[in-house]
Amino acid sequence: MEQRTDRSQEELLEEREAHLVEALEREDAEEIHRLYEHIHPIDLAEAMEEWEEELLERFCSLNDDEKMAELLEAADEKLQVDLTGYLDNSRMLRIFGYMQKDDIVDILGNLRINRRKQLIDLMRAGERRIITELLGYDEETAGGLMTTDYIALNGQLTIGNAIRKIKEIGPKTELIETIFVLNHQKQLVGTADLRDILIGNDADTLDSISDDQVIWVEPETDQEEVSLLVSKYDLNAIPVVNKRRVLLGIITVDDIIDVILEEHTEDMLQMAGVSKEETIDSTVPESVRRRLPWLCVNLITAFLGSFAIKNFEDVIAQVVALSATMTIVTGLSGNSGNQTLSVIIRSLALGELELKGSWKLILKQAAVGLVDGVCMGIGTGIIVSLIYQNFYLGCIIFGAMVCNMMIAGLSGALIPLVLKALNQDPALASSIFLTGVTDVLGFFIFLSLATAFLPFLL
Amino acid sequence: MEQRTDRSQEELLEEREAHLVEALEREDAEEIHRLYEHIHPIDLAEAMEEWEEELLERFCSLNDDEKMAELLEAADEKLQVDLTGYLDNSRMLRIFGYMQKDDIVDILGNLRINRRKQLIDLMRAGERRIITELLGYDEETAGGLMTTDYIALNGQLTIGNAIRKIKEIGPKTELIETIFVLNHQKQLVGTADLRDILIGNDADTLDSISDDQVIWVEPETDQEEVSLLVSKYDLNAIPVVNKRRVLLGIITVDDIIDVILEEHTEDMLQMAGVSKEETIDSTVPESVRRRLPWLCVNLITAFLGSFAIKNFEDVIAQVVALSATMTIVTGLSGNSGNQTLSVIIRSLALGELELKGSWKLILKQAAVGLVDGVCMGIGTGIIVSLIYQNFYLGCIIFGAMVCNMMIAGLSGALIPLVLKALNQDPALASSIFLTGVTDVLGFFIFLSLATAFLPFLL
Repeated sequence: MEQRTDRSQEELLEEREAHLVEALEREDAEEIHRLYEHIHPIDLAEAMEEWEEELLERFCSLNDDEKMAELLEAADEKLQVDLTGYLDNSRMLRIFGYMQKDDIVDILGNLRINRRKQLIDLMRAGERRIITELLGYDEETAGGLMTTDYIALNGQLTIGNAIRKIKEIGPKTELIETIFVLNHQKQLVGTADLRDILIGNDADTLDSISDDQVIWVEPETDQEEVSLLVSKYDLNAIPVVNKRRVLLGIITVDDIIDVILEEHTEDMLQMAGVSKEETIDSTVPESVRRRLPWLCVNLITAFLGSFAIKNFEDVIAQVVALSATMTIVTGLSGNSGNQTLSVIIRSLALGELELKGSWKLILKQAAVGLVDGVCMGIGTGIIVSLIYQNFYLGCIIFGAMVCNMMIAGLSGALIPLVLKALNQDPALASSIFLTGVTDVLGFFIFLSLATAFLPFLL
Repeated sequence: MEQRTDRSQEELLEEREAHLVEALEREDAEEIHRLYEHIHPIDLAEAMEEWEEELLERFCSLNDDEKMAELLEAADEKLQVDLTGYLDNSRMLRIFGYMQKDDIVDILGNLRINRRKQLIDLMRAGERRIITELLGYDEETAGGLMTTDYIALNGQLTIGNAIRKIKEIGPKTELIETIFVLNHQKQLVGTADLRDILIGNDADTLDSISDDQVIWVEPETDQEEVSLLVSKYDLNAIPVVNKRRVLLGIITVDDIIDVILEEHTEDMLQMAGVSKEETIDSTVPESVRRRLPWLCVNLITAFLGSFAIKNFEDVIAQVVALSATMTIVTGLSGNSGNQTLSVIIRSLALGELELKGSWKLILKQAAVGLVDGVCMGIGTGIIVSLIYQNFYLGCIIFGAMVCNMMIAGLSGALIPLVLKALNQDPALASSIFLTGVTDVLGFFIFLSLATAFLPFLL
């Protein structure tokens, strides 16, 4: 009985892990098995990321196949590759016998192509066919996420027979609460809830208690779309069917949670121009390499802003106060636009927004920018008028802020929608593009107004 | 059989919704029930958001209690409140009979206090006690998410008796795949998988097949922490226990997905200084009201930047090129810092990062900023040297960019960690604070360097 949020329980876990390392060092197989029962595979996998090669090798040789299967499922990509290095092909196949098909495919996908080919060739024909097929799907589609370990029964089966089948197949499947109901052509025609089966009349058919309102996807469906359907309809699994509605596999909710976490990380990082592969564990050269491309794009937008200012150098030379005040216009517009940007990107990610008919929305965001611009512009105008003792400078900055914050609202909505229309991730460096637009136009508008009303400023 | 991703299926759905509205208008109860069977409650609830009051009222009077329960569960907050307006207290209680406790609590939480009190007073004593207790928990904690509709059995029960109990209680629960195992003091001692129960020996006890490695939380645990545990350990439900380990309720994975989506939306919006309540459906005045507070903070940081420049007005008057080039330093630093910021905030949200021992990480982010600064600084320095035909100006901008991008890396890591240490959301307007720091220091460093080397620039 463990509670991960309890400090003392965490210490207990660390203690057990330390004991396990000691037991491994003196090769005490019995003690290892005893300790293993009290450590969750996920926690063990996390601890093992820090272990030396020698310890990992010893662990692999002292542990049984079922435990190794649990651990490989829980391990991250790097640890999976490390562990498989200590397991020969025949042992790997025995371990696969304890694993779900989607997990086997994940592990095979991380292996070098030679090793993968060897293992697949050694599989039984039926399994080889399924695994090869699953490996063929793009990792980020429904096909790449699905498993073939589910319960599908013919709708004409009686409930009594169905229960017998479920007891037989159940232990090998990922999900037992939902039974998929097929017709004689193996097409998916409905789902049956295990509750209804358990309390049903033995002589009735499955069809009589099944629900024909099934939400399904095709193997090519993008994982983000799959996750939206699962969260919208509160599903615990979603079936994957081909064009003829033949059931190919199912995707369970735990894999969907991983997709949701992955997609959201992606959105937030990409908005700022960071690759989704970067984490806090990335090394300095790795981080630099991943971030530089977007900083180079940013360099171009920064120079565009600089050129906008350069055109007005003689005006600035005459009224040097412009130099200190112009950055207020661009700074506020940039952040105001980012507010709109984040609302739109979230909405796109939640599937609430379509390009079609979004003009109203874009205009609404421009209106929000306009009103925010009027509010902030009045404040800024008054303060600037007082500091520089120049009423006209206050008016000019007010005008520039109203225009530019409206543009910021417009761009904050347009940039992600345009990226989406170009089939790019709507978050892709959108913040860098946005500040590019608000800087260039902000400087240009403010300094143009100042030039037009120059006599009043001198 | 429906596929939401299929355009023609979407049209079919719209057609059915239109038919339903027609049937409602001519009060054809039979046709309404027929159509209802082919529309998912979630889709119907979405369509109903657009309906007129009269149509909603007619729908409530023509539909049976079970259907109304399904619909209320699927409805958003506003629709729930609208619908309950057309249902009298005795009907509400009948409808509650078809609903899970956590959903009843959600609906009661949205009602006006008088109505809520009336309904609770009308409930049976046992139900009233449970509902009052559930209403007492903060919405964003484990207690606020949990339901009491689960299956918990004594570990001493034989498997044969357990199956009989499960058949009896099962239809009223949210989850059947996992059975919670208690001791005689009603304390949670393990979980049993329905698969193992179904294939188990009728005479064995539940204890003999149950797993004592249970991950649990307390009712006060924050929902974000709950969601991290569920996603880490791939759970389909997590039990909530009190200090004495007595089982109080369970939280199912569909509610966890809602939490994950909510928390991520929050992070992304708050980073830019937008309230989590804002959506694309918010009206213009609503959006303005929610965004203005952070824009006011931004106004202060913008003026700080402006004051930094103002101090150097005579230098700028002499070398007006500084005005056009200083924004390159701050623009790039701001975006570079945002890259670090987003990596750190994601990591905090995924629970990968603790304040303790994060100095190494902060220094690493500063190093990334430094290296990025050297790379971008060289490019900027060369281009600026060529444009302004002044080698020294290029050197000064190089120096300023190296310093300021290092500061940006440092601040991008520090700001969210400091917010977290102050028990604030680490994403809270972090972007606005960050650009405040990078602007003020960027202008100051660049213009100070320019002042120091002024003779070379003239």
